[in-house]
Amino acid sequence: MSFDRLIKRIIELKNPTVVGLDPKLDYVPEFIRRRYLDNDGWTLKAAAKAIFDFNQAIIDQIHDVVPAIKPQAAYYEMYGHYGMRTLEKTIRYARLNGMFVITDGKRNDIGATMEAYANAHLGAVTIGDSQLEPFGADALTVNGYLGTDGIKPLVDICRERDKGIFVLVKTSNPSSGELQDRLLDDGTPIYAAMGDMCEKWGADTIGEYGYSAVGAVVGATYPRQLSELRERLPHTMFLVPGYGAQGGGAEGLVGGFDKNGLGAIVNSSRAVMCAYKKEGCDERDFAGAARREVLRMRDDITQRLR
Amino acid sequence: MSFDRLIKRIIELKNPTVVGLDPKLDYVPEFIRRRYLDNDGWTLKAAAKAIFDFNQAIIDQIHDVVPAIKPQAAYYEMYGHYGMRTLEKTIRYARLNGMFVITDGKRNDIGATMEAYANAHLGAVTIGDSQLEPFGADALTVNGYLGTDGIKPLVDICRERDKGIFVLVKTSNPSSGELQDRLLDDGTPIYAAMGDMCEKWGADTIGEYGYSAVGAVVGATYPRQLSELRERLPHTMFLVPGYGAQGGGAEGLVGGFDKNGLGAIVNSSRAVMCAYKKEGCDERDFAGAARREVLRMRDDITQRLR
Repeated sequence: MSFDRLIKRIIELKNPTVVGLDPKLDYVPEFIRRRYLDNDGWTLKAAAKAIFDFNQAIIDQIHDVVPAIKPQAAYYEMYGHYGMRTLEKTIRYARLNGMFVITDGKRNDIGATMEAYANAHLGAVTIGDSQLEPFGADALTVNGYLGTDGIKPLVDICRERDKGIFVLVKTSNPSSGELQDRLLDDGTPIYAAMGDMCEKWGADTIGEYGYSAVGAVVGATYPRQLSELRERLPHTMFLVPGYGAQGGGAEGLVGGFDKNGLGAIVNSSRAVMCAYKKEGCDERDFAGAARREVLRMRDDITQRLR
Repeated sequence: MSFDRLIKRIIELKNPTVVGLDPKLDYVPEFIRRRYLDNDGWTLKAAAKAIFDFNQAIIDQIHDVVPAIKPQAAYYEMYGHYGMRTLEKTIRYARLNGMFVITDGKRNDIGATMEAYANAHLGAVTIGDSQLEPFGADALTVNGYLGTDGIKPLVDICRERDKGIFVLVKTSNPSSGELQDRLLDDGTPIYAAMGDMCEKWGADTIGEYGYSAVGAVVGATYPRQLSELRERLPHTMFLVPGYGAQGGGAEGLVGGFDKNGLGAIVNSSRAVMCAYKKEGCDERDFAGAARREVLRMRDDITQRLR
């Protein structure tokens, strides 16, 4: 109904971060790749199996430290339906381990079709007497370019099933300003107008911490806009990508949080998945290196929130 | 490299239409549903198999009349990885039958991730010595909210592999105006600014008919904007949803075409898939009814282009 479940877990673990699982095959250590590619050949199926083992080992090592994972759908679609099976299994495994799962799909469409996406990723599908959860994540990232009727089916499911969405507002990439920073005729930048729509869409779903089920994606790479939007959107939880590998530093993140140190969750993907490469440790210790990196990230961010 | 392949086929068949394959399970006739659900139980797998049979029969009946199909990714994701397998198989089957396939995924992300989507849907993935095509469509719909670096990886693949993209410009849904119709400080509506970006993104990929590899989605439900954009975007091929079930009539479509009767392809989904329900014929004739409906649609549209 809101992001209360996520926020509770952030408070319990004293850790407002999320690990992006965007597993390119060359992030996966060779000993795992060989486990499948040597036996099954260089196939999409073998790659998808190797990626699941990689994800599973990382989840084992981080689930008691980090509240959430964020699998990026593109890196699963890359391996066709085998990859999507790995996405399903990764989501299930993370949830069994108590983690909150945000599928990063940036889905968007007209109302009837958005209902299909909402059921696919957050809800259930009815087949005869069965109610089946295809992917079963806790939250989904979405794109609001189509306006309210592309968002409403999601909000309905958030309300019914205690789920959440994050709408793209100000993205972390270099060219995000080409459209998002343009000013409307009343002087509002497009990203701020999109943010205002998030406040409106979430208005009936505000939880006990003051945040609704409709969050926003706001990049760490744009600290000025992050602070500005925190002020402007008091009920909108932020998912903040761009920390670490994309160049956003911890100082710039502080403005994304409210006065209680809540209201934002910061994502890191590559720096965690490839921590073993940066450390230069034995690749068999890749999940241990991931754990050391998430602890470092937690401390790097939380020490600035006090 | 451009939309020449699609346009050639449109000219050959004298038919600027595309059939949307958005197969909700209750569009599938009962005799096909029972084929799987009675044996395999009410599972995602059984549903996905039934949907493939449904798609296959429709493709058999329309491939010599209609140049393209447009499977909507959401209706495959609804059935989890089994659904995605049906999407792969549907794309392959349609291409084997000479059809151009537009995957309607409205994907969008930052550059590195967009490269993964581009490889997944239009390109190939490298695994060891293998180059594998996960979905292998001819074109993909995308959302341009993130600007150039979310589009460039797609344009590169269009150039290398003779593929195309359609960027959401003015969508067919009732609330599309909430953001898309807002005016920028120079008086340009957002949809027109997005259209201008399509012209720019496609500039180096213009083919022999004058259209680039970067098309635009413009809804039949907004005929004024459709005509306006046709004038404004001379090198941008239009994918026009909203004809038929969504309420756009054939008269309003004319403005989407250029003086040679080219430059647009009109989509119909439900009216084709559910033609047997509307006709009231035996459900075993559903694919025949689909064929009768695509012939009717072809004539309805082309007679207005002369």
